[in-house]
Amino acid sequence: MSLISLLTDFGTDDEYVGVIKAVILTINPTAVIVDISHRIEPQGVLQAALMIRAAYRFFPKKSIHTIVVDPEVGSDREILICEKAQHMFVAPDNGVLTLLLEQPGESSIIRVQNSDYFLKPVSQTFHGRDIFAPVAANLSKGAAMTEFGPALDPRQVRRIDVPRAFLTKAGGIVGHVIAVDRFGNLITNIEVDMLAQSGIPEKQAMTTIAGAALKGIMSSYISVKPGDPLVITGSRGCLEIAVHKGSARARFDAAVGAVVQIGKDG
Amino acid sequence: MSLISLLTDFGTDDEYVGVIKAVILTINPTAVIVDISHRIEPQGVLQAALMIRAAYRFFPKKSIHTIVVDPEVGSDREILICEKAQHMFVAPDNGVLTLLLEQPGESSIIRVQNSDYFLKPVSQTFHGRDIFAPVAANLSKGAAMTEFGPALDPRQVRRIDVPRAFLTKAGGIVGHVIAVDRFGNLITNIEVDMLAQSGIPEKQAMTTIAGAALKGIMSSYISVKPGDPLVITGSRGCLEIAVHKGSARARFDAAVGAVVQIGKDG
Amino acid sequence: MSLISLLTDFGTDDEYVGVIKAVILTINPTAVIVDISHRIEPQGVLQAALMIRAAYRFFPKKSIHTIVVDPEVGSDREILICEKAQHMFVAPDNGVLTLLLEQPGESSIIRVQNSDYFLKPVSQTFHGRDIFAPVAANLSKGAAMTEFGPALDPRQVRRIDVPRAFLTKAGGIVGHVIAVDRFGNLITNIEVDMLAQSGIPEKQAMTTIAGAALKGIMSSYISVKPGDPLVITGSRGCLEIAVHKGSARARFDAAVGAVVQIGKDG
Repeated sequence: MSLISLLTDFGTDDEYVGVIKAVILTINPTAVIVDISHRIEPQGVLQAALMIRAAYRFFPKKSIHTIVVDPEVGSDREILICEKAQHMFVAPDNGVLTLLLEQPGESSIIRVQNSDYFLKPVSQTFHGRDIFAPVAANLSKGAAMTEFGPALDPRQVRRIDVPRAFLTKAGGIVGHVIAVDRFGNLITNIEVDMLAQSGIPEKQAMTTIAGAALKGIMSSYISVKPGDPLVITGSRGCLEIAVHKGSARARFDAAVGAVVQIGKDG
Repeated sequence: MSLISLLTDFGTDDEYVGVIKAVILTINPTAVIVDISHRIEPQGVLQAALMIRAAYRFFPKKSIHTIVVDPEVGSDREILICEKAQHMFVAPDNGVLTLLLEQPGESSIIRVQNSDYFLKPVSQTFHGRDIFAPVAANLSKGAAMTEFGPALDPRQVRRIDVPRAFLTKAGGIVGHVIAVDRFGNLITNIEVDMLAQSGIPEKQAMTTIAGAALKGIMSSYISVKPGDPLVITGSRGCLEIAVHKGSARARFDAAVGAVVQIGKDG
Repeated sequence: MSLISLLTDFGTDDEYVGVIKAVILTINPTAVIVDISHRIEPQGVLQAALMIRAAYRFFPKKSIHTIVVDPEVGSDREILICEKAQHMFVAPDNGVLTLLLEQPGESSIIRVQNSDYFLKPVSQTFHGRDIFAPVAANLSKGAAMTEFGPALDPRQVRRIDVPRAFLTKAGGIVGHVIAVDRFGNLITNIEVDMLAQSGIPEKQAMTTIAGAALKGIMSSYISVKPGDPLVITGSRGCLEIAVHKGSARARFDAAVGAVVQIGKDG
């Protein structure tokens, strides 16, 4: 199998995603294509960086992940192929690879320059169709990374600032809401490992957000009554603030960027 | 072919559905995955129960339908495999199988307990990824139902109240709007068979909703003028209230739960 | 490979698209199905006509494009199979083929009448499921067009009015916004070829929309500062009005139908 994933900010109202798939299947009719999301906010490079890190490891090894969140399309920003942890990523050099490059293991990077693999004529506005799709499709057919262009030192790849949680001198944790999902769950950047590292026992963790304090880390939404808020370990391995059968976004009027603090109670 | 359908309340903005597909394709690279909908309202168990009943019979026999509308994830609610009418369903034991179990024929039920088939570690919040997806994928590869856990008497499966249409002593029908589709069509729970059973001729049927009365059951949207309302047999085999080139939802300011009555005119 | 594309106004909240795919895969388990869009506005025949013209040529030859934007479903409007440019189209005879028939090359048209290929019973409201899907699936399995019904002279196919850009006697161009994409880009019907034909040099083109004047045709979004508007050649080969890292829709409060004029500056 040749599995190609797509992560874009194109939405699905327009024909753009369908056309990308058409280009891929023209080149490799046996490719299997999986949508991760097409609802990244327009030009949401940080959001895409967080989402691909959360998703990629559930795909089979040798999957090719195609990330088209590319506000600088048509400029001289480069397009890269990144091989990491036995996965491949085709992405613009705009920082969207920041968190992947921090994952354990070696990274190999290629600068995509060989226009033999592009759809001609290359447009000024839709490299997803004209470059990313045919490069991913050709990789899925077995073309070697090195055929697409020269290597790049991973240290030369552009990075973006990513909000990080940190331990305070007083022994607490300061983090942020980095995503809000469909259910209104507030996903933080506080990994459960960091909580362990802080030495705060789960039962004594006191989480504050938007002036409210929530005691303990719960093991299930139903650990509290319907309508009540809780803190739980989410599917990304980070703490999430949720409301049982409700929306924490609505409850706390909170959005991406909101500060979340954890201290020790009593 | 191994066909797996997905019906969830995850939406498609987040990575959740893509990750479920990644897990399935890691286990069974030849699985074909079809989305029924991911836009069930959060925790909309009744809506999901109605939709899977409407959809499943158009799929090939031996399809595996994966229903992840699971507000009690992380609790001790069980996950079930149900075999019915030569289809398989993987679903939480929260009532979402209620209408399927009423379909003609025998039902076989298994309680999913064999953690050899789960993705490890099993999270507290995303059993769609960690249990439903690998169970469906392994079923699609030919694993026998009985490998996943002990049998359950179908009478032990949880049921939910489903609004039912009924015949009145006066010879009329009382039903409800049970879904509203993208076009604003009001889908009722009044099956055409019930209309036949009532003895009311289609031409003399007088349908009332929100204080308005609509005469007859039409054979096409264009049986009335653009902008006019009508009653028609919808794609689910139930009566629908529609507006030709318009929205019955807007016209009647109606939502799920609205009462619909049918009497005999003249 | 048998590739079937879908372009509908069904949305993806309801089960309709999943059911269409189920019917296709029941008939042809090896079909590969690609969504172009399901977010055509309800009954948006013109929008669908523009989108299929923009998308079809990126698909492999012999693809079967299934267009279910069908406000007259249940009436005596016909369903057609159109073969054009080595692609096949299954569509209602409501004008949605207008722009395809204008593409270079011969067109062959069949009136779909052979009910042996329909799903029984044929509903009054969902021919997408009962006719379009099984016809597309059988075509993808190799059934000859002529098996589905008699031929129709392409001149007999219904057409719709499509807004056309034109050259003025004064040497300028008058066109319209024909689509607005997710990014708020205003896609016009002014093809770059027409600009060349007008003799206006790209650097001297003065584009007016909503009272504002934009000088030149840019080669990239980043040719202007973030927040500034520009005119650029879009992915459909037509001029688009965009805002660098912003929304031209919001900037110009413009929608489909807005007039766009191009003259020569200085």
